[in-house]
Amino acid sequence: MTENALPLWLEQIKWTDDGLVPAIAQDYQTGELLMMAWMNAESLSLSVQENRAIYWSRSRKSLWRKGESSGNVQQLHEIRLDCDNDVIVLKVKQLGNVACHTGRRSCFYKKLDNTGNGYTWTDVEPVLKDPKEMYQQ
Amino acid sequence: MTENALPLWLEQIKWTDDGLVPAIAQDYQTGELLMMAWMNAESLSLSVQENRAIYWSRSRKSLWRKGESSGNVQQLHEIRLDCDNDVIVLKVKQLGNVACHTGRRSCFYKKLDNTGNGYTWTDVEPVLKDPKEMYQQ
Repeated sequence: MTENALPLWLEQIKWTDDGLVPAIAQDYQTGELLMMAWMNAESLSLSVQENRAIYWSRSRKSLWRKGESSGNVQQLHEIRLDCDNDVIVLKVKQLGNVACHTGRRSCFYKKLDNTGNGYTWTDVEPVLKDPKEMYQQ
Repeated sequence: MTENALPLWLEQIKWTDDGLVPAIAQDYQTGELLMMAWMNAESLSLSVQENRAIYWSRSRKSLWRKGESSGNVQQLHEIRLDCDNDVIVLKVKQLGNVACHTGRRSCFYKKLDNTGNGYTWTDVEPVLKDPKEMYQQ
């Protein structure tokens, strides 16, 4: 997909210099925040076509069909764009109940705590699935 | 603030090459997504000290005390970090009920719609305050 071939709704997005946009996944019913990852035009276009979240893995430099290894697919219910056209929200149904590769519901499981002796990040969400089992599928 | 002087909880964050981290603001009660902006170590540290969201404006290259012009301050209730240490969530109380500079509750007011003749972004959230009035304060 070349830049020139983009349909208007994709052209209207302000992509980074690397051609990416941050995409926040949120439970479509509870509003719970699940994760944030990145999309390029191809992955966003495919997400819409396939009605599931497909990200761009910056580390692997390849499409990342969320759930392809773990089964924890994110079904799309709605896509939102912000006022500056540079952030996407995906309202999703999280299959398998787990979004995080650590086996937790949400990736945002570290809470900033004041210990009285400074601040620390504390894990506050339970591990629902053993990651070893998740990635055997 | 130099990189060496960072306390551990700030050092544990994976900052971008520009020294930034994306910060997602979410209503601490309803779970509603309000906006995403960027923070550097100084703005995050000040946010914690002052118990309000202080972002780093990439366009103005300066601290952005959310609400300093509009009065729409975001009071901090909780800060979360994700599994990869590269995204922050701020659970906030949105004073003035409006997070967006357009006068809407949330910045994510554009919904992707299938018109039958292709996709389009449709504004689906009401303007609660006239932006002209918001920024006269």
